[in-house]
Amino acid sequence: MLKYEPQAIDVMFQALADPTRRQMVERLAQGPLSVSVLAEPFAMSLPAIVQHLKVLEDSGLVRSQKVGRVRTCSVEPAALQTVERWISDRRLTWERRLDRLGLYLDSLPDDPSEGNQP
Amino acid sequence: MLKYEPQAIDVMFQALADPTRRQMVERLAQGPLSVSVLAEPFAMSLPAIVQHLKVLEDSGLVRSQKVGRVRTCSVEPAALQTVERWISDRRLTWERRLDRLGLYLDSLPDDPSEGNQP
Repeated sequence: MLKYEPQAIDVMFQALADPTRRQMVERLAQGPLSVSVLAEPFAMSLPAIVQHLKVLEDSGLVRSQKVGRVRTCSVEPAALQTVERWISDRRLTWERRLDRLGLYLDSLPDDPSEGNQP
Repeated sequence: MLKYEPQAIDVMFQALADPTRRQMVERLAQGPLSVSVLAEPFAMSLPAIVQHLKVLEDSGLVRSQKVGRVRTCSVEPAALQTVERWISDRRLTWERRLDRLGLYLDSLPDDPSEGNQP
């Protein structure tokens, strides 16, 4: 598995913070596409699309390859997984903490004031 | 489960694109902390910390509560899960596509030129 530096993760989160770029990743998750087909549903100029694509490629989330005159783009699942794992690790840390807290609370007597009652 | 608008997801990705803010989420995943304890390991002014905290709170990833003079911060696991799920859904779409491609390739004869051989 590829290792990514914190700076690389900054750039990945940054790349995914734009709705157009998230839609591009969404389309590419369904399979590789040429730049022109990828651009079709977006109401923006081709240079604007290419600029968004460059941000995605620079982040490592998307890669592209030119064969003849056609550039084909695809997602990089290892990069998606890096971002996903960063978040899930934090969420799991939080959930384990809640579980430990639950075990501790279960270990307490039902009514801590019981000992003082006659 | 809370539903988040695309714009809210923009802001969450944006909030996580900064290494200091990710470290803050990392610390808070281990349990709620007061602002001053949260700030301890960072070599920056308290106003700078408060500014980062505001970005995290505005995104919904962190919430805080003031009791007396102490403001205590904690992570919001549902918000973390929203970001995580957005990515895992895309990754799973991609993996299912690879699986279908694998099944299709398995269904082909081992050597497509076989039929032409004597």
